[in-house]
Amino acid sequence: MSDLPERIEAAIGTVLPRDGFKALHEPRFAGNEWAYVKECIDTGWVSSAGKFVDRFEQELASYTGAAHAIAVANGTAALHVALQLAGVKADDEVLLPALTFAATATSVAYCGATPHFVDSAEATLGVDPVALRRHLEKTADANGGSCINRTTGRAIRAVVPMHTFGHPVELDGLLAVAADFGLVVVEDAAESLGSLYRDRHTGTFGRLGTLSFNGNKTITTGGGGAILTNDPDLAKRAKHLTTTAKVPHRWEYFHDQIGYNYRLPNLNAALGCAQLEQLPAFIDSKRRLYDRYARAFAGFRGASVFSEPEHARSNYWLQTLLLDEGESAERDAVLARTNDAGYMTRPAWTLLSRLPMYTACPSAPLPIAESLARRIINVPSSSGLA
Amino acid sequence: MSDLPERIEAAIGTVLPRDGFKALHEPRFAGNEWAYVKECIDTGWVSSAGKFVDRFEQELASYTGAAHAIAVANGTAALHVALQLAGVKADDEVLLPALTFAATATSVAYCGATPHFVDSAEATLGVDPVALRRHLEKTADANGGSCINRTTGRAIRAVVPMHTFGHPVELDGLLAVAADFGLVVVEDAAESLGSLYRDRHTGTFGRLGTLSFNGNKTITTGGGGAILTNDPDLAKRAKHLTTTAKVPHRWEYFHDQIGYNYRLPNLNAALGCAQLEQLPAFIDSKRRLYDRYARAFAGFRGASVFSEPEHARSNYWLQTLLLDEGESAERDAVLARTNDAGYMTRPAWTLLSRLPMYTACPSAPLPIAESLARRIINVPSSSGLA
Repeated sequence: MSDLPERIEAAIGTVLPRDGFKALHEPRFAGNEWAYVKECIDTGWVSSAGKFVDRFEQELASYTGAAHAIAVANGTAALHVALQLAGVKADDEVLLPALTFAATATSVAYCGATPHFVDSAEATLGVDPVALRRHLEKTADANGGSCINRTTGRAIRAVVPMHTFGHPVELDGLLAVAADFGLVVVEDAAESLGSLYRDRHTGTFGRLGTLSFNGNKTITTGGGGAILTNDPDLAKRAKHLTTTAKVPHRWEYFHDQIGYNYRLPNLNAALGCAQLEQLPAFIDSKRRLYDRYARAFAGFRGASVFSEPEHARSNYWLQTLLLDEGESAERDAVLARTNDAGYMTRPAWTLLSRLPMYTACPSAPLPIAESLARRIINVPSSSGLA
Repeated sequence: MSDLPERIEAAIGTVLPRDGFKALHEPRFAGNEWAYVKECIDTGWVSSAGKFVDRFEQELASYTGAAHAIAVANGTAALHVALQLAGVKADDEVLLPALTFAATATSVAYCGATPHFVDSAEATLGVDPVALRRHLEKTADANGGSCINRTTGRAIRAVVPMHTFGHPVELDGLLAVAADFGLVVVEDAAESLGSLYRDRHTGTFGRLGTLSFNGNKTITTGGGGAILTNDPDLAKRAKHLTTTAKVPHRWEYFHDQIGYNYRLPNLNAALGCAQLEQLPAFIDSKRRLYDRYARAFAGFRGASVFSEPEHARSNYWLQTLLLDEGESAERDAVLARTNDAGYMTRPAWTLLSRLPMYTACPSAPLPIAESLARRIINVPSSSGLA
């Protein structure tokens, strides 16, 4: 029997005190959360209108460097509308990693489009531009700005890189492939608020990018998300689409297209404003925690701590152990042992290409994603831990 | 020039003091809002998990008498999932009033189905069962439990009555038509929390019902909604679908169908629990306000105050003036005059059948809905006003 589970538990024990259950990622409310939320309740502005939504959007734009940020109900809603604004239509295909959270694919399905899965890179845990180019050269025809899947005959409209656990994908390569094949880039930056690639914020490289402020993210609004874009017309359309497509008028209710009730309530935006003020401190804490894990696993036999890729400065949203390939059979034993010990750990998501609703979807070969799914273990990562 | 605008302003002035702007409907936070929301922030439970979501669902079920209530992000999300659970599929048709808020139709469109508009009744402002039966007898074939539109050839799967401004539709008649034509009833009770029909809560007569807790509703969660049903299997599927269809497991991420991120955050549910405690008092206040408007407009020439229908006890969410047909040309002058005077008023929604994305949809003749849309004026209705 392998001693890997025991040794991993012991190594984590040198990083985290054994003084009670350690969640995978819990929020931290140490700033103006009370003050801002109470102001909402005291003034009665909790819902669709209110100053915190505007302020949160302005501060998100300022922090990320995007020209525009549109606050929405959650990261899934952000992706759904971003894809629609990217021109994704029924019967299109959209390229996305198999190794990602369900929302990256469901948002494609909401558009009536089909996910087309691609492989990930060992160095970034995200879409591998080299494998993507090889796959498209084999399976797609790009001409006149459109990309057609030779097998299915469908248009491949967009590619959605997801910055896994906060680590930016290799964007130089990805943007080049997208340009060469006429693909719109929509960045799923749900996990990478605060993560930079070549000193520029993730989510601002694609035509649109999306953020999430779910309860398990680096900052939270309870539930929330945002769309980032530098295009003023797309920003205007994003706001319109996410607020029921109602045309402004003193009293008339007139909607000019099928819109969505995807707005972020002011109450949740108030929480977001307070959280955003603390984001630099949260990221410092998370990077310190990475350092501690890295030291604890230096020279460790059978597993290593995943480090930010080249040209990237990561938010280290979720700290990640990578089991050696030869140890992947021990994954579930490690998960059981660490969870039993009060260290909440989890594997990567089941590859989306293996979920019943997507098994018939087109897919590139996924050797690296399959290996990563066998080997990834996320360990407690809350910003309060270091 | 008509003196109607001036006289209506004066009559409203006998109900509401001229001491500042009167919103159409603003929330009232006079109870445990701050205590419960503070508890969320202090404990860190603001997001997907937390006791207030469970409590809010239990208390909604208890209050409405539904066996199950599932809290979701908003009323639109509730309708979308309720329709899906009612069996509405792509290329189906769904009957709904032309006189309703956009969400009643967009939720049908999200299912890939087509809205099929029907007329309203003067006595309820909602779907008229007599006109509905006449329309279906002319245009549809019902046999073997299915209803087919003879013109389009599509299945008419469901009917979605909406309880306008809190006034229940004539449910006895509506349920009879639905039974005779094999239609599933999904009640859009977004506006009628607290409204009863024959002493039973609206939203519990159909196979599923939906509520909204938007900022302008009788109680608010910032943004929120709920699905009501007496069917334990539908309730279980509603919870599953609205929480990304993730199959429970200690650590695996496995989703067995395309689900939605429609959960209500715990922070918003906390607000809802506090609001629900005050709902009986809010409704008492709103019914007192109705009495005041009714007295102010008793014997009024050119307009009347709308009163709850037979067999109904309404929440009087929005107080409603009905201009006489001969005065409908004055509607916009009345709206301008009252809004200028600081009394926020609004007309009914533009009939959905007139919105550009629905003009090609099937429709019954809409004489009453068209008349109502010309004549309805909602006047300030907040529960704090009486």
